This record gives sequence, C-alpha cells and structure tokens, in this order.
Amino acid sequence: MLNNLMKTRPVDLETIFHPRSIAVYGASGGFLNAGTRFIMSFQESGFPGPIYAVNPKGSPAENFPTFKTLVDIPGPVDHVYIAVPAGAVIDVVKDCVAKGVHSAIVFSSGFREIGTSEGLAMEKEIAEIARAGGVRLFGPNCMGIYCPSAKLSYRVDFKMMKSPLSFISQSGGVAITGVNTAEDRGVGFEKVVSFGNECDVTSAEMITHLEKDPATEIIMAYIEGSGNPRRLISAMEQAGRKKPVIVLKSGMSEEGNRAVSSHTGALAGSQSAWEAALKQANAINAQSFDEFIDTALTFHRVKRPAGKRLCIISISGGMCVLLTDLAIRMGFEVPTLSRSTMDGLKEFFPGVGTSVKNPIDLAATFFNPGNLNKLFSILDKDDQIDAIVFLISIEFVISIDKRIPGFMDNMAQVFAEEVSKVEKPIMTSVLYSTRDDIRRDFVKPLVDHKQVVYPTVDRALSSLNHMMRYYNTRDQRHDKGH
Amino acid sequence: MLNNLMKTRPVDLETIFHPRSIAVYGASGGFLNAGTRFIMSFQESGFPGPIYAVNPKGSPAENFPTFKTLVDIPGPVDHVYIAVPAGAVIDVVKDCVAKGVHSAIVFSSGFREIGTSEGLAMEKEIAEIARAGGVRLFGPNCMGIYCPSAKLSYRVDFKMMKSPLSFISQSGGVAITGVNTAEDRGVGFEKVVSFGNECDVTSAEMITHLEKDPATEIIMAYIEGSGNPRRLISAMEQAGRKKPVIVLKSGMSEEGNRAVSSHTGALAGSQSAWEAALKQANAINAQSFDEFIDTALTFHRVKRPAGKRLCIISISGGMCVLLTDLAIRMGFEVPTLSRSTMDGLKEFFPGVGTSVKNPIDLAATFFNPGNLNKLFSILDKDDQIDAIVFLISIEFVISIDKRIPGFMDNMAQVFAEEVSKVEKPIMTSVLYSTRDDIRRDFVKPLVDHKQVVYPTVDRALSSLNHMMRYYNTRDQRHDKGH
Repeated sequence: MLNNLMKTRPVDLETIFHPRSIAVYGASGGFLNAGTRFIMSFQESGFPGPIYAVNPKGSPAENFPTFKTLVDIPGPVDHVYIAVPAGAVIDVVKDCVAKGVHSAIVFSSGFREIGTSEGLAMEKEIAEIARAGGVRLFGPNCMGIYCPSAKLSYRVDFKMMKSPLSFISQSGGVAITGVNTAEDRGVGFEKVVSFGNECDVTSAEMITHLEKDPATEIIMAYIEGSGNPRRLISAMEQAGRKKPVIVLKSGMSEEGNRAVSSHTGALAGSQSAWEAALKQANAINAQSFDEFIDTALTFHRVKRPAGKRLCIISISGGMCVLLTDLAIRMGFEVPTLSRSTMDGLKEFFPGVGTSVKNPIDLAATFFNPGNLNKLFSILDKDDQIDAIVFLISIEFVISIDKRIPGFMDNMAQVFAEEVSKVEKPIMTSVLYSTRDDIRRDFVKPLVDHKQVVYPTVDRALSSLNHMMRYYNTRDQRHDKGH
Repeated sequence: MLNNLMKTRPVDLETIFHPRSIAVYGASGGFLNAGTRFIMSFQESGFPGPIYAVNPKGSPAENFPTFKTLVDIPGPVDHVYIAVPAGAVIDVVKDCVAKGVHSAIVFSSGFREIGTSEGLAMEKEIAEIARAGGVRLFGPNCMGIYCPSAKLSYRVDFKMMKSPLSFISQSGGVAITGVNTAEDRGVGFEKVVSFGNECDVTSAEMITHLEKDPATEIIMAYIEGSGNPRRLISAMEQAGRKKPVIVLKSGMSEEGNRAVSSHTGALAGSQSAWEAALKQANAINAQSFDEFIDTALTFHRVKRPAGKRLCIISISGGMCVLLTDLAIRMGFEVPTLSRSTMDGLKEFFPGVGTSVKNPIDLAATFFNPGNLNKLFSILDKDDQIDAIVFLISIEFVISIDKRIPGFMDNMAQVFAEEVSKVEKPIMTSVLYSTRDDIRRDFVKPLVDHKQVVYPTVDRALSSLNHMMRYYNTRDQRHDKGH
C-alpha cells in the first residue's frame, strides 16, 4: 500500500536535487563512453552516496559495483542516469518505476527531436510510464542535474563552486559553456539543469521551484521553445516579482526555429510574441550568450546604481573618447565632475597629458599605485556620479613589467584591492587584446576580490542597463500595487 | 644655395619613413623616462643607422653617443624625436631647421589640447618654424612612426611583423593597442603613425600618401577630429576607389566631443555629418575598436564571398540555434543545404544527436579528426552557400584533453590544416569562455595558418558585412563610371 502511494505521488524537486544514491545505465568501456564519463564525474564530484552501474554485459571498470538490472540493487536508488540507445529507454523507465526511484535523467537522444512519428511516440510513452509510476523524468536528450551543494555533477570539469545563481538550460552544450564561463569568472551555481525535450519536468515547473528556493537569488533560463509558452511566461512573471529571471531565448528567426526543431524538437514560436511576453513578465531578455552570463554576474556582484551618470576612467585618451561615445549611445550620461572633485584630483595629477574632467584619462599616473586610493576616495564623495567604469588595456602594463619584473603582479594586486574598496557601483573592463595568458594573471586578483571583469565596456554597460531596467520596472509595478 | 633649397622643399613622406639616422631629445635616466625608452626601442628594433642622444646635461646611459646640441652631431640626422617639456620644444625645432633634418616627432604634450591660448600659440609657432625651414613635424602630443620595413619602432613590444596594412592614429594609446592586437592575431603592419595634434603633417596628407604607396593595400585611420574635414573626407574617398579605408571615428557624442578637445585639441564635429560623409566616401565606419581591428584583418585574410548565404557549423546544438538567429538578424541567409550535400554528409554522420541541415551541429563527430576533411570537401562543392562560419567552444576540447593527453594539440593542428584548405570563404570563431591560456594554444595553429580567429561570431559577421558593403559599393560606382 505504502509502495503504491510512493509510486503515484512523486517527490518534490528539492528532494530530487539531493539524491541518496545513483545508478547509471549504459556505462561500458573508457572515457569516450558517455555512461562511463558520467560515473567518473559523480565519483570525482565527491558524491557521498553509493554509485552503481546497471549493465547486463558486465562492469565498466574493474571492481565497480555493477548489476544486471536496477531491481537487483540492494537498498534504495533515488537517481537514475539513462545513457542507452533510444529504443532501450522504455524498458529502463519501467525498471525505474519498479524500483521506485525519485528521478531519471534520459541522456539518450533519438526522440521528438529527430522529427519522426516513432520518435515522438516513444517520447510520449516513456513520459506516460514515468508519470503513472511516480518517477520524475528529465529530458530525453539532456544532461541532467548539477548541484554543488549535493556534490552532484555530471561533468568532471565543473568546479563545484556555490553561489545563489540557478540556471536551467534546454541545451546541454549551453549549460556546460555557461557553467564553465561563470566558474572561470569566479562565480559558481546553486542548481543547474539541462532539461532537453522536457517530456515530464518542464521549464515552467523548475522556474516556479527556483522562485521558492531560498538558496536561489537569480534565475537563468536558456529556452529554445515550450509546449506551453503561456505557463512558462506566467512562471517567469511570478518569479520575477521576487528575483531576476534572465532569459536567453533562441529560435527567434525562422531559420533558428528550424534549427530548434532538429535540436530539441521544441516549438520556438514567433519572435515578436516572445519579446512582448518577456517584457510583460519583466524577464531580462539577453540578446546573446555573453550578455546572458554577463547580466547574471552583474546582478550577483555589482551594486545597483542610483542613476545613469557614469564616471569613465582609462589610461588612454583615445579609449576615453571612444568609451564616452559608447556610453552616450547606450543611454548613459557622462557629466562633468563636481568642482571639488576636479580640485581634489588636480592635486596629484600632473597638468599635462592627463585629464581630470570626465572621462578621466589617467595616462601614466595610473602606474603610481598610491594614486588609485586617492582617486577612488575623491570619486566616492562626488554626488554628480552614480557609477564608475574603469578600462584597462593590459599591454600598457605588460610593457613595463618586462623592464621592472614583478611590476604587473603588484599593480594587479593593488588595483584589485582598491577597486574592491570603492563604495559606488564600479565595473572594470580588461580588454582581450593581446596576451590572453598574461591578461588572466592580471584579472585573477580582481576575480578573487569578487569583481566581475568584462572583456569590453560595451558588455559591462549592456548588463548594467538590464539590471537597472529590471529593478526600475519592479519598483514601478510594486508602487502601482501589481 | 643647395642648403637653402633643401630647407624650403621638404622631403616626401616615403623618405621620412626610412630615415638614415635618428636623434632623441630629452633622454635621461632609466626606462621610466620616455626619451630613454624611445632610444631603447630604436636599438631593439634593429634600426641600422646611427642613434644619438641630444642632452646638454650628459648621457642617458654609459658610453651612449650624446651631444650638447643637434648641430654638433657629425653627419646627417634625418629623424628627430622630441621628448622635452612643451616650453623647450620651440628651440629644438629651430635646431632641427638649422641641422636640415627631414622630420621631427613632437612627443611632448602641453599644446593646443590643454585649452590655453599659450598652448595654441606655441603649437602654431613650432609649425611655422618647421614649415619655413622645410622640416616635417608629426604631432605635437604623438608617438610618431612605426615602420617594420625600415626597422623603425618607438615601442619595445612591437613585433616588427610586416603586412600590407597601414594605420594612422590620432591617439598614441589606440595606435599601441591596435598594433599589439593585430600582431597578437598574426598580422603586422607596413606603416603606423600616431599623429596627435597634426600641426603640420595631417591625416589627409598621410591617407593620400598611403593610397599611392604600393606596399599598402588596406588603410586604417583612427580619427578624433580634423581642422579640415572636407579635405580629409576627400582623401578617403579618393583612396577608397583603390583600397579599403577603415575608419574609427571618435568624439561622435557631445560628451565624447568634449573629451576629444582635452585629448588632442581637435574639433570632432557632428555625428550625423561624419556618418553621412564617411558613407559617401565609401569609407568603412567601424563602430568600436574591436570592429576596427576585426574588419582590417578580415579584408586582409578572408576571401570575398559571392553572396550572403552562410553555412553555420558548431559542436553544440544550442549554439547553432543562437548563431542562426544572430546571422539572420545581421542580414545573412542560412539556407538549407543542397540535397547532394545532405546525402554526402549523412554517410559519415550518425543519425542521432547531430544535424546535417544548416546549421550543422557536429556534436561529438567533431572529435574524429578525419571527419573535418570530408565535411569541408562536401561543403566546398555546395553552390547553395557562399561562406562558412565555424564556432568552437574550447571547453569541449579541454575536457577530453584531460583524459587523452595531447588530444587538444592534435585536434588544433588538424583543424587549422583543414580550415586553411577550404576554398570557400571561411571564418572561425573560438569563444573566450574559459581558460584563456589554453584557448591561446588552440588558436595558435589557426593563426599560423593565416586564419583570422574571432572571439565571437557576432564580430566575424560584422566585419564580413563591412567587407561586402565596401566592395559592392565600389563595384556599383565603378559600373556607373564614378
């Protein structure tokens, strides 16, 4: 009786993110076999519970606990990973029901997305079996769950860093690139789900879960399409009243739509309808992958500015001019600084070759590390500016480092410390122009000091625009009692 | 008599780019002194002629040939580098006239750009003295000439790589960043001039010279403003009939305009007037520094496509969809491939998890190096597509390399070789997402095989758009007998 009840009332998603044990179907042979790779990932991520292989043909590795079927495994199995050919998935899902597992990830592809009636029929069948049996299915054609706080990872290269960002992605590749990119920029995740064809657990359901999840402060969603767009948008709107929902929607063009259908078999829908709906939901509509990641990091790390008045700082006069044009084009203001700021700055700036107006061209005065503290202290007191944007071209620093060894490391350290003490919102951009390897060394202290480093000022300002628009809209709607 | 004639008829610019000897004013002490740095740069660039210092107070380094005044130097001095305080420049220029030098670079700032009547008066005076005495002046407030074929460089970090690109820049910082960036991406320069306040040699004059210069195929110009915009635009239009003129114009906004005036003292002019004039001149109007460099490299390295039909390839289905949307938004077409192409591709592609439509999602088939040759051979025969865009996310390659050492190096080598054999125009983009240092290793073989590698597909397509627009306009005007 109890057993029956468990089968028909599935566990909630939060429990699914924290399984007690995992079994993998389809592991055989070396690292190039997907199933074996998943087992290695679960092991290396430090998953604390038992990990089993299910394979009637034998173990994927010596002495690895392997069973002929799922029900042979003694004790509970909460989470099952299915990496067998599409035609074999139905029987595996039946085994999951028989065993009473909480959730199954269907990694296998070859369902709705291949465009055949057989593929669609198989997908419907596995969904029905799972639903009737109380098992929650992710996918098919997906990579599943990454949850650092549960020490659960399907990739060996994920760093298990935690943060209040959660991310659902219809594409496995976009999930991987997103996690790698954010982690590389010093920001981890609370929960990441690659959900593919969403035959059972849907994006809408996950967003509603993340809305209520106290560990999640920022929701990211890569969406190709949806079987129920109205419900998805409604979940976004609801969640957006409490926390930002940042969306990367692909398949916006007709040709992109066609590509979506062969990727996850989703219906992408019309661009204008999506754009209007996302706007109405106060969801942040990122225009590119980079913008998607940048915006999430900005919400997490950058303070909300009181207004759009920027102070722009660089060490090249030409870059200062280009950035000022850019900021104006993007809807910001670059006002002249207050009299007292200019007077204060003049005290330690030589009169020639630098400028103490706005933009501020520091030129070589940048390289006297003591100047940065004075500069930021003065700017922090200026009530004519709301935020600071600082651009560094790494090659100016490299060329000195060649002559004065250790100069760059010291400069990078001092710069990071001073930037992290600034009270106003500040965004630093270190150009990807030359020597990416040395740039990395320069950027590291900034990342260690919890700064978002943008490769271009354009990208910094795009995400700042998104953040300001989101909060302003939320405030306005709140005032109107929405 | 001959001496008099030489003084009043200045030598042509080409001679100036190839001086026989150099003298530097204002060198004293270590590497942080600008004059000393210039001397070191001339030495390290392998300049074949004599290099002198002029300093009444003594040598900048032990045993360095130093003279109290310019006229004391025995033998001719063609090129003089002036790095003394602004107030001392007038006397130095008089010395240059007395010595009969060809050209002088006024590195010193503190002239028109500081906004005082004294600064402006001094600038006019040095220009008049030079003009009357037959000396050509660059600057003031500039860094001068970089000419690898003459082994002449004012920066130790320039790599002395040659190419048919020439670049004039009103800003020294933009010139440095431009050279570093292009050289880092495998492309050097024919001539680079940082020209600052242009009191004598103007941007218009240099563009006209580069138009006639057989070693220059592509002209790049960073312009903040001009005393004679009509002449500048006319020089661009004239040059643009023979070779592309790529322009980065700053000071487009009112605030940017203000920043220009304190940087090089130029009058930036109105945005709409510049935009219209550049268009009329068929000059390429780059919207950012990155676009400026990308476009120049694209003109140099990428074949002109016959039309706008792209084949998009990636190893992530999600990225394929995003890129298709992007390409359509940017005015390209992403047609379905021809029947024979699809049939050909199906032979070596597994049916599931990849797509042989357009975009092509290679997924894991990418990692079988033999597949690339087959893929490109088939695509080269497809008359439905005009160009190929290939996106790589480095982390997919890294994760395998951790298990199969040497995998990435081999993959990078094979990829570069196969890409370089493609007959159709092809653009490769390797995302800056994680591990910039490893990305660098992956990109190097591509750069060695003369490929432009773009950090985003957006940037690849922006520059492709510029290139196609330029040639199409030139062809149309030519047909109309302009």
